[in-house]
Amino acid sequence: MNPLRLDTAILSADGKELIILDQTLLPGKVKYLSLSRIDDIWEAIYSLRVRGAPAIGVAAAYGVYLTSAQLETQDMAAFCAHFRTQKDRLSSARPTAVNLSWALNRMEQVLEENKALLTVPQMKERLKAEAHAIREEDVAISRGIGQYGFQLLRPGDGILTHCNAGTLATAKYGTALAPVYIALEQGWSDLRVYCDETRPLLQGARLSAFEMHSAGVDTTLLCDNMASYAMARGLIDIIFVGCDRVSANGDFANKIGTSAVAILAKHYGIPFYVCAPSSTIDPSIPDGAHIPIEERPGSEVTEMWYEKRMAPEGIKVLNPAFDVTDHRLITGFITEKGVVTAPFFEGFQALGLC
Amino acid sequence: MNPLRLDTAILSADGKELIILDQTLLPGKVKYLSLSRIDDIWEAIYSLRVRGAPAIGVAAAYGVYLTSAQLETQDMAAFCAHFRTQKDRLSSARPTAVNLSWALNRMEQVLEENKALLTVPQMKERLKAEAHAIREEDVAISRGIGQYGFQLLRPGDGILTHCNAGTLATAKYGTALAPVYIALEQGWSDLRVYCDETRPLLQGARLSAFEMHSAGVDTTLLCDNMASYAMARGLIDIIFVGCDRVSANGDFANKIGTSAVAILAKHYGIPFYVCAPSSTIDPSIPDGAHIPIEERPGSEVTEMWYEKRMAPEGIKVLNPAFDVTDHRLITGFITEKGVVTAPFFEGFQALGLC
Repeated sequence: MNPLRLDTAILSADGKELIILDQTLLPGKVKYLSLSRIDDIWEAIYSLRVRGAPAIGVAAAYGVYLTSAQLETQDMAAFCAHFRTQKDRLSSARPTAVNLSWALNRMEQVLEENKALLTVPQMKERLKAEAHAIREEDVAISRGIGQYGFQLLRPGDGILTHCNAGTLATAKYGTALAPVYIALEQGWSDLRVYCDETRPLLQGARLSAFEMHSAGVDTTLLCDNMASYAMARGLIDIIFVGCDRVSANGDFANKIGTSAVAILAKHYGIPFYVCAPSSTIDPSIPDGAHIPIEERPGSEVTEMWYEKRMAPEGIKVLNPAFDVTDHRLITGFITEKGVVTAPFFEGFQALGLC
Repeated sequence: MNPLRLDTAILSADGKELIILDQTLLPGKVKYLSLSRIDDIWEAIYSLRVRGAPAIGVAAAYGVYLTSAQLETQDMAAFCAHFRTQKDRLSSARPTAVNLSWALNRMEQVLEENKALLTVPQMKERLKAEAHAIREEDVAISRGIGQYGFQLLRPGDGILTHCNAGTLATAKYGTALAPVYIALEQGWSDLRVYCDETRPLLQGARLSAFEMHSAGVDTTLLCDNMASYAMARGLIDIIFVGCDRVSANGDFANKIGTSAVAILAKHYGIPFYVCAPSSTIDPSIPDGAHIPIEERPGSEVTEMWYEKRMAPEGIKVLNPAFDVTDHRLITGFITEKGVVTAPFFEGFQALGLC
């Protein structure tokens, strides 16, 4: 199966349903869900059926369009009020990734700019077109990141990645894994990809290892605590990770454990790159201390994928979904417009990314 | 339940069986196994039913005694040959922890020193006494480590530990968790213990969190990849880990992931102590590059405690059971004779540890 053919979040042909790949069932089952109720879309985002910062943005854009369009009215004020209710509901699903609010704000901006100009039916079409545009741009952005990242690779490189920032985290190609897809297009067959399993929800084992192996890549799974061993043994030449939100100074939030990978990379002298679509750059946040970090239920840790309890009753559990990596640990950001090295804010500005 | 009352490996009252707590069933079930066949004892060590370097040493000492004593003979040469067969079999169960061969060599030395002096029945009694001595010494050694480690603690400290080097890893008290038991004896009630879950076999979640919570300690479980987050948030004041083998220069092997914890500790400026009974110090090994590292089956990683496959078929898996931590990352070794700081070899010698 070519993983690039798996759609993470698209609109149904009749425009009435959001179709998402239920990623909680991977790698065992490829199953699509057709969603139209706001609560179901919220749940799909909260429960990580659709996940990955860019894919969440696409799903939210389609979600706010189609649940808004369900209101049968000709009154623009009523439509706008309904839109905002849907937007507020969806934006509460997950706090850390900026793409969720970025996509919803972009949809709202279209509403604001056009509410005096369009009828409600015209507005619905306009919002649908905007959601499609967000998705199509995401494909192009991911491909751009892939091309810039590819230029950093040498044949035979061992690439470590954490969590899943592959095609399953975006509309297509991914961010951290996009350079590998570009390399495959170029006929490279000797890259080695090492996937941290990424506890507690195992996105590395279930998603990154799945899509890399499906794409024909030499794929090795390791537990998160084995990354130091792999680096010490010389297996890792370069590290690519995704990100959920980048602050103005370059501190960034990504899946829990990313900061540890960055500290290890610094210790072992291995280049550490952050693959960041411009939509994840949030210059309104000065540094990492100001990025909100989602805490999730302890049962994700104690019950091993919700099945069997592997820890005593009554203990406390730490379960932050993300951590913040200090910008001083980062070799560079790979964006759709080029690679940015320190100082990062000036670099983002120079490329027009913020 | 007081975890100090759980016996990891003892001899049955009639001296014919090795009784071990089956730690693969914790925390859900407290079940003891009575073993007398060499293959069953080998399997119990290989499958981690009894685990932890010191406890493995105790189990091996009892195991080689009782399986040797099963031979009905008056011929000392035949008894010695049989002993060595049992010893060689048991020493193959796990390669990294030096205590296994240390305990077996100590038993063999008793054999060699006394084979010209004793009858076979007397030799059997002598070997039994030696195995008991190894166990009793381990209790005293662990208590000594606990007392020296306790002196490094301040009220309210947050202690991070990796894997399980608690009472379940020794005859009693443990190594890395021994200071906490001493603190409890002293009436301290405000220590906080953070347990890395320790993938893939979850000894932190199943064993350390279990024994600390059972002992009444404020216990928090975290995934291995959350240690950096916990350190960055200021939750961790000191780190105690166990060890399976210490080389002459202070490089040491311990549960996979320990080297990452040490690198993070250095990054965040948190003291990192290795709790090392003298039996784990192996001056015959010059540095960590020479310590053999056990590779275990990939299914331990892909199938989540052998139950449900969480990774695609056909991928490669890295599953080293241990890693080596560079001595330059270590604040000190806590031994039963005192705390050793760098240079470590000289320090070990000064205390008569090697």
